[in-house]
Amino acid sequence: MTYRFGDLVAFAAELLSKAGLDGDKPDVVARLLVTADAMGHTTHGLAQLADYLEEIEAGRMARAGEPEVVSDRGATLVWDGRRLPGVWLAARAVELAAARAKAHGICAISIRRSHHIACLAAFLPAATEAGMMAIVASSDPSTAHVAPFGGTRAVFTPDPIAIGIPTDGDPILIDISASITTAGMSARLRREGGRFAGPWALDAKGRATDDPNVLFADPPGTLLPAGGTDHGHKGYGLALMIEALTQGLSAYGRADGETDWGASVFVEVFDPEAFAGRAGFIRQAAWTAAACRANPPAVTGRPVRLPGANAMEGLRRAKAEGLALHPGILENLAPWGRKLDVAVPKPGPHGCSPACGGAIGAAD
Amino acid sequence: MTYRFGDLVAFAAELLSKAGLDGDKPDVVARLLVTADAMGHTTHGLAQLADYLEEIEAGRMARAGEPEVVSDRGATLVWDGRRLPGVWLAARAVELAAARAKAHGICAISIRRSHHIACLAAFLPAATEAGMMAIVASSDPSTAHVAPFGGTRAVFTPDPIAIGIPTDGDPILIDISASITTAGMSARLRREGGRFAGPWALDAKGRATDDPNVLFADPPGTLLPAGGTDHGHKGYGLALMIEALTQGLSAYGRADGETDWGASVFVEVFDPEAFAGRAGFIRQAAWTAAACRANPPAVTGRPVRLPGANAMEGLRRAKAEGLALHPGILENLAPWGRKLDVAVPKPGPHGCSPACGGAIGAAD
Repeated sequence: MTYRFGDLVAFAAELLSKAGLDGDKPDVVARLLVTADAMGHTTHGLAQLADYLEEIEAGRMARAGEPEVVSDRGATLVWDGRRLPGVWLAARAVELAAARAKAHGICAISIRRSHHIACLAAFLPAATEAGMMAIVASSDPSTAHVAPFGGTRAVFTPDPIAIGIPTDGDPILIDISASITTAGMSARLRREGGRFAGPWALDAKGRATDDPNVLFADPPGTLLPAGGTDHGHKGYGLALMIEALTQGLSAYGRADGETDWGASVFVEVFDPEAFAGRAGFIRQAAWTAAACRANPPAVTGRPVRLPGANAMEGLRRAKAEGLALHPGILENLAPWGRKLDVAVPKPGPHGCSPACGGAIGAAD
Repeated sequence: MTYRFGDLVAFAAELLSKAGLDGDKPDVVARLLVTADAMGHTTHGLAQLADYLEEIEAGRMARAGEPEVVSDRGATLVWDGRRLPGVWLAARAVELAAARAKAHGICAISIRRSHHIACLAAFLPAATEAGMMAIVASSDPSTAHVAPFGGTRAVFTPDPIAIGIPTDGDPILIDISASITTAGMSARLRREGGRFAGPWALDAKGRATDDPNVLFADPPGTLLPAGGTDHGHKGYGLALMIEALTQGLSAYGRADGETDWGASVFVEVFDPEAFAGRAGFIRQAAWTAAACRANPPAVTGRPVRLPGANAMEGLRRAKAEGLALHPGILENLAPWGRKLDVAVPKPGPHGCSPACGGAIGAAD
């Protein structure tokens, strides 16, 4: 059962618009959430929308206006996000950082008091399509699930970092967290009675386990940093870096005792043209991409893939042939459709209209 | 058996000077190699010096002059390192990036054709002592030991990345590689008949193993990316990022078929003052550092440490009380001492003279 990409975007945008978001915020947020679903990041796409609508209604996500500029030195900026929709803020930041990188070669923007930014990989193509390399990272100072390596009390969020690298074909789109798994995945496994694929958590006493329920126990356990019990100092180091880029450079974070769901965000764009030329950059990236794709696999029949290859393929397929959502996502939004008087899209074996950028137009 | 910090620096500097390095290169390289030993990075300190001397003698490490400026946009630079000593180039790059970050808020320098840069953490205090956050990363396009996740043919070097974060006390100094372990450690374990502490490598057929000998087999095995067989896509992503920053932005790397030992280097410095103020940055970093240090340990008696805490303590102790080198390091340099007529330092229960920055002067 698939839905037209543009229908899902229009549905989400209308919900956000009727909930009160101003300007281009409904369309930008809607398009990036559906893009996340199409890229396969199904916990960070439309699955977030009901929570966003609730945050708007409760006044915890701001509806209107611009971020406040705390500092602007050309190649560096700090924004106070004023709790505006994080997906919109991050998209705006990537756009501005790309423009500034064209002028300065590089631009870094640190954002305090953003709301949640959902799927980091979804922001990258806007930069890579312009031939730029981009980094997006995020942390949430209001909560913590990950302990420092060797410890048992949570200090960090999973702290995702995404890196977009242009090549001669599809871009490389890396989207990894500093912990082995995420809070969202833990909650999903707990609901579905599942287990982690390995000892990815510690209970409150510091014993490694594959049981997601330890995160919800009292006292709670913690998610292990990337590298796990074996070499978790690597994930710990990444978490320290990401929290410094997001909360340190924006000078707002855990030290302030924030309690509302949100995000501190770091966006950085490099213009290879300002360094040693775009062609030279692409030449190296293309060589590496080819060496990875042609790599003899460890397991026969499981070819080595480049990060983002499946996501880009999923995005093309969703625009051409429609998108199959993870079960429950639209059902979860149906009450909001009734409440805000927005019709839930109808499924069908169709693609997207040319107007929304799909390769194959197929009227429903 | 300890040696005076200043004696070791003077010894290494005289060797490098008599080998032909010009200007301040001998002193800068010597000081940073001994610093690496003092920080506990014993495979990346004076253990490298004999190889450097051999490279100089063979004409594969340049002796004199400056890097060539390929591009300079203020906040971004590319240098052609002309195969000058990498330790000197990286130290110069951190110094310049810190000065430029003061003007622009941020500065990134990508260096092609550097020689080996040894211990990345050793470059960080120069930035953190000025209140700056710094990132140093390195790859060597002439060789490869790490396969992309799911593959069996090496494409990447271990690709270290180091991050320095100023706090209200000692800086946080992270120094991690994108693979679980390194080529140097594999060679050392092979010599000593040891094994990895876990399944950190794959044989040529893709089977996980703790046997370092697979790296030297024909066909050779590979080092696993950080995360290992369980979640090695994380280390794979880091390797792709680091190779793009070092070889992509400098537009020189694996695509050029380089065969000589060397490095492609990325240095980036952020001035928190230009973002949202130094005090605000330090306040967040101090909060995080305290939360990590006070974290209840998973194993009783093994307190959680901050990355760099042992290194800074080791550096202070080495300057005050002298430095105990890893076995074999000075013996390995004795032939070079004879060849270049430089006396090998004598050990003794002494500290460093006040002139070299030690806290306690103790004449030998």
